[in-house]
Amino acid sequence: MQTLGYDPRICFGRHLAAIRRARGWSQEALALESGLARSYLSGVERGLRNIALVNICKLAATLSISPTVLMDFETAA
Amino acid sequence: MQTLGYDPRICFGRHLAAIRRARGWSQEALALESGLARSYLSGVERGLRNIALVNICKLAATLSISPTVLMDFETAA
Repeated sequence: MQTLGYDPRICFGRHLAAIRRARGWSQEALALESGLARSYLSGVERGLRNIALVNICKLAATLSISPTVLMDFETAA
Repeated sequence: MQTLGYDPRICFGRHLAAIRRARGWSQEALALESGLARSYLSGVERGLRNIALVNICKLAATLSISPTVLMDFETAA
């Protein structure tokens, strides 16, 4: 059984929020453009949601980046 | 609304299977080591499952690779 030394939901959420802000996008704009609910996106950024593959790829496409960039988060707690 | 020109489930599944085989791991061994059910892993590799973040990271850790490597799949249909 693989146990991780970090919480991917927290790390991913922080990283996504940082990328979004660096591009000057509001949470609302990213939600609207990606087709995800704003409340869902907010939960993802706060590390409360275990976002699945298809939505990771939709967010990456909306931000015009590779999914690998979205997954390139710091794994420090 | 973001629509993707590819199916991430198919692309991810193929990529994961290729990495697993290149390392000489059986599906059963990867399932056992990662703690995921073999039937679930089989579905992921066949593009039937929309695997979520935490399980992507568990598989990457089990294979001793970065989650970014697992997400670096070809997006051709």
